[in-house]
Order: sequence, then structure tokens, then C-alpha cells
Amino acid sequence: MSRDEGPPPKILLAHGSGGRLTYELVRDVFLPELSNPALETLSDAALLPELPPGTRPVLTTDAFVVDPSVFPGGDVGHLSICGTVNDLAVAGAKPLYLTWALILEEGVDGELIAACTRSAARTAREAGVTVVAGDTKVVPHGKGDHLFITTAGLGAIPENRRVGDDRIAAGDAVLVTGPIGDHGATIMAARHRLDAGDLQSDCAPVNGLTEALFAAGLDIHAMHDPTRGGVVTTCNEVARRSGLRILLVEESIPVREEVQTICELLGLEALALPCEGRVLVWLPEEQVEPALAVLRNLQYGTGAQQIGSVEAAAKGSVPVRLRNALGTERPLDLLSGMDLPRIC
Amino acid sequence: MSRDEGPPPKILLAHGSGGRLTYELVRDVFLPELSNPALETLSDAALLPELPPGTRPVLTTDAFVVDPSVFPGGDVGHLSICGTVNDLAVAGAKPLYLTWALILEEGVDGELIAACTRSAARTAREAGVTVVAGDTKVVPHGKGDHLFITTAGLGAIPENRRVGDDRIAAGDAVLVTGPIGDHGATIMAARHRLDAGDLQSDCAPVNGLTEALFAAGLDIHAMHDPTRGGVVTTCNEVARRSGLRILLVEESIPVREEVQTICELLGLEALALPCEGRVLVWLPEEQVEPALAVLRNLQYGTGAQQIGSVEAAAKGSVPVRLRNALGTERPLDLLSGMDLPRIC
Repeated sequence: MSRDEGPPPKILLAHGSGGRLTYELVRDVFLPELSNPALETLSDAALLPELPPGTRPVLTTDAFVVDPSVFPGGDVGHLSICGTVNDLAVAGAKPLYLTWALILEEGVDGELIAACTRSAARTAREAGVTVVAGDTKVVPHGKGDHLFITTAGLGAIPENRRVGDDRIAAGDAVLVTGPIGDHGATIMAARHRLDAGDLQSDCAPVNGLTEALFAAGLDIHAMHDPTRGGVVTTCNEVARRSGLRILLVEESIPVREEVQTICELLGLEALALPCEGRVLVWLPEEQVEPALAVLRNLQYGTGAQQIGSVEAAAKGSVPVRLRNALGTERPLDLLSGMDLPRIC
Repeated sequence: MSRDEGPPPKILLAHGSGGRLTYELVRDVFLPELSNPALETLSDAALLPELPPGTRPVLTTDAFVVDPSVFPGGDVGHLSICGTVNDLAVAGAKPLYLTWALILEEGVDGELIAACTRSAARTAREAGVTVVAGDTKVVPHGKGDHLFITTAGLGAIPENRRVGDDRIAAGDAVLVTGPIGDHGATIMAARHRLDAGDLQSDCAPVNGLTEALFAAGLDIHAMHDPTRGGVVTTCNEVARRSGLRILLVEESIPVREEVQTICELLGLEALALPCEGRVLVWLPEEQVEPALAVLRNLQYGTGAQQIGSVEAAAKGSVPVRLRNALGTERPLDLLSGMDLPRIC
């Protein structure tokens, strides 16, 4: 088989057995896109350069089982890199190295695997990370669904940089870097074959945004990417961990018209839809304007807004509330989550 | 729901949606077993202590889709920890931190998930590693198979320790730390409902073995764990990467009688069966005896043997050969791998 062979027409069980077909899949599909010195050794583990002295390592993982695998604005390959890069970025780390493990369904189109590999490679380059280790398994037809991708990411937090929910204080502002729910609405529309117009997933690497905030010298207290469970879940978790409560202001939360329409059609709540390229930022109230200026100057931050603020918790108080235009407040509770399987 | 709730009877799609049921699964099933400070924060990423100065990080990943999920000598939880610990160990690294991502099939028995979590936790404790980050996704019934686990591992190579195929030289000996093929034969016997007697998977963490070799001051050139594709595949890869050839001596390769029987019944080759708790070691010929003494003194190394040696490659020579008791040699080629899907 020549080196220009390209992807196989269909994935066979033997592509996951560690023998010649596995080797050819790696050589013809993965390496041409993801190539780098660590990966090219094809050894059991990737030996990496020493981390800069004083930095602390950060490790994260995510499994991606999104259905459909390809959607407006991305595919599971693109998503797999964004999700892991973003988990590192919101922890205050510079994302450095990723692992990329595939579980393929027997019979899946080899070109789909190649396309998702190209997306992943392109996004990794954009985010400045390297895929240093991988694995491929194949399960029989009917025991998987096209492809599942699990990534892990290693990042490093520079010395003297510390973000965490324990740093959040009453009086802090809550920012979002752009309209919410685009990813979730896009996936749900695709799955229900609804016309979503030009709506696309917001899926994007956010480490450019987070590093820009630090570079501007802002005192970032905490950051989170509102993925599964959306803004509602993230804010509830932050309230629980910080022991504070959060007030969100409905009018100030950016939601696209298409997202609102899809929510109404499908009975969803935009605030509970996942984003895959947005960051919630907690920082002192007086730094809101400079932070918004930094964010709005960047490709993925043009729609940045303050959406709420942090308050001291009173005994028996609701952790997260939403205030509408009339000044009426309602609790935003952690959802049971029945509605959105396989959204990422 | 109280904290003593235990696992749910069946996994629902909502257990993977990031809402309340996901949180309860993590709280009631994963945290009680895998608990540690990094994991307990349940944040997007785990912040780890600085690696010792001078050490180099090593990163690896593996997806585990073994069928059946539970087998004599282990289960996919145990296997998931061993596989990743071992990839780090044979790279010469001390395994430190693991990530653990689950893809569950809707309807799978919650007790199976809990049992695999207990196995994983027990093995992690034995190997001295910490599971610092995780993720859980659920796919609809018929789109997965019980549970798939993908792990990634971060280890550190101490300063001045270097192993790699480029260090292998003509004249080196090849050792194995115990009988080969036990894992593969166990899985294939279980899948074909063959009586394998007392045969069990050899699945075990090998970092105790590898660290003992280094502690004894031996000049370990390279190590590999012969997993998918077994000894045949590992030796072919080593021959390719090192540019040398390998001669294996059939009589000296430890294979259990039950494994040989299963191979004959199913038309398999023991040398191509995966091991999940064995190490192949390349080191100078004169260090064979002290190395075997170190290994045989340890729980997982009692069956250690020298099984072959390394030779200079001649033009057009076969990379890996097997010499039988009559002195006849045959090539051991990389298998196409059709025979053993979902063995790990």
C-alpha cells in the first residue's frame, strides 16, 4: 500500500486490532494531519519537554459522543479539541498537549474519520496545542455509533496565576464572551431536522480569549465554559462551590433569535443549552469595562456582555436567580437533564 | 437523595446529560471510590502539584472496549487502569495521574458500573496513581455496548533516566516478565464459552516491576508491554524502529498449557495474543541474570525468562524470527489483526 492511499472506504473491525490495518490507518489518515515528533514515534507514551519551572500541570478529559457527528459550524473532531482546550483555558492554564482516542463503529465511512481528523488537526493548530498520543478501537456495527472521541489535555498554569471558585467574592460581576446556546440549539435543530437558518455551533477554542484577559493584567477570579447543562448548571455549581449566590439579568444575556425560536419549538431553555466556545468570567465589578474591551476586540469575544453579579448568600436563599425586565425574579435550578443527551 | 444511595439500578440517558442525575452518579458511585482532593473539586480540570524539577512529563491514552466487560482475573475497570499505568511504566516513567472517561450504554446495570469503578479504584491504589479527572456520557441502547472506558495517564521520567528503542543494540537480550497470552486467551475463551480451567487474565500494573529494575541500577535500554498484537507485533515494531532484527527462541517463551490449548481450539497464535501485565525488556546480555533475579522476586515477575536476543540487521533480512527446538527458523510477521477485535 502506498503512502498516498488515503482513508479506507469503510472501517473494518481489524482497523482496531493493533495489526497491519491499524498501522495503515494511523499512517494514512492520522499522521499526515496530526504529525509531530512525539506522535511520530508511535510509541506507548509520548515523552514531552520539561514544563517551565514554577508552572503547575493541569489535566482534564472529555468524551465526545455528539449526534450528529457533523453539524453546522463543526464536527466531533473540531469539538473534541475545543472541549479539552477550553477546560484547560478556563482553569487558567495554557493548553499544551492533547491525547485523542477513537472508538469507531465497524462499517463507518473512512472519509468521515478522515474529515474529523482534518478538523481536529486544524483546530489544534489554531489553539496552539499538539496531539501527542492516540488510540483507535473498533466495535462491531450496532455496538457504537459512527465515532466517539475521547480527549485528555495537559496544560500548565504560569507561576502566580490563580483562578478558582474560592476566589469569587460578593460584588463580583459575571461576564459571558458571546451569545449563549448556539451549540445546543444547532445540534437539536439538526437532530429534529428543523430549519435553523444560518445558525451555527459556537464551538471554538477560547484560550485566545482567556490569555488575552490575563495579558491585560485583569484580576480574573474564576472562569468556566458553560457546556453540558449550560449557564444554569455552571452558575449552580459555582454557587455551590463558592458558597455565594448569583443573580442573572435576563435582558443582558445575549441569545440569538434563531436560538430562541428553536427553544420555543422544542420546549428548551436557552440558559440550559450548552455552549462550546463561550466563557463565563467572574471578576471585580470595577474591571468589567476593561475586560469587555479586551474580549470584544477578539474574534470569539465580539458579543461579550456582563450578565449578572455575585451576592452574599443568605440563609435558605436560592443559589441562582434570574431577574426579568419587569424586575421579577425566579430561581434557576439544576436541571435533571433529561432533555439533551449526546449534545457533545 | 441520601449520600448512601449507591448506584442506580439502570443507567438512563439523563445520567450523561450533565444535570442532576450526572451529579448524583458522580457523587454516589465515582467519588466514594476514587476520591482525592483534585477530583473532589469536580471542576473542569484538575490542578496538580508541580512536577519534580528535571523530570520530563509523559502522556498516554487508551480506549478500552473489551468484550465481555467482566472476565476471569478482572474487568474493564481494572484493565483501564493497568493499560495506562503500564504504557507509562514501560516508557520509563513513574505513573502519577490518570483521567477516566466513561461512555455508558443506556439501560446498563448500575451495579456493573459500580463494580468496575471499585476495580479501577483498587488497581489505582495498588499502582500508586490518582484518578484526577473524569467524564461520563451515555448513548442510547444499541449505540454502545455496556461501557467503554478511555483513560489518559500523566507520568514523569526522573532526570537521567532514558529508555527508548534507539538505545537497543545488537547483542541485547530480550526478557519477558511472565507467561504470555493469558489475557488474550482468557477473553477469547470467555467469548466462545470455552472451559479455560483456572486460566485468568494477566492484567496487572507493572510499574512495580519496572521501578525495581531501575532501582537495581540496571541499564534498561527499552521496555514494551505486548498488548494488542502481542509479542509478535511489539517485536516487529521494535525491529522497525531500531533498525535491528530480533531472534526469539520458542522453547524459552513461557506459554501456559491452557493458553496453548485455547490457541489450538480457536486457531490463534499465542505469540500474537495480548498480555496486559507483562513487560518485554531489552538490556545488555551480561545483565540478564541480575535482571531476572530482581523480577522473579516480585509478585508479577515470578515467571520471568530470557526469550530472545537482538542481532544486527543484514540487507533484506527478516525483522523478527522464531527458532524452534529443532533449530528451524521462521519469520514472525506483523499480523493483519483480523482475529482479535475488542480484546482490550
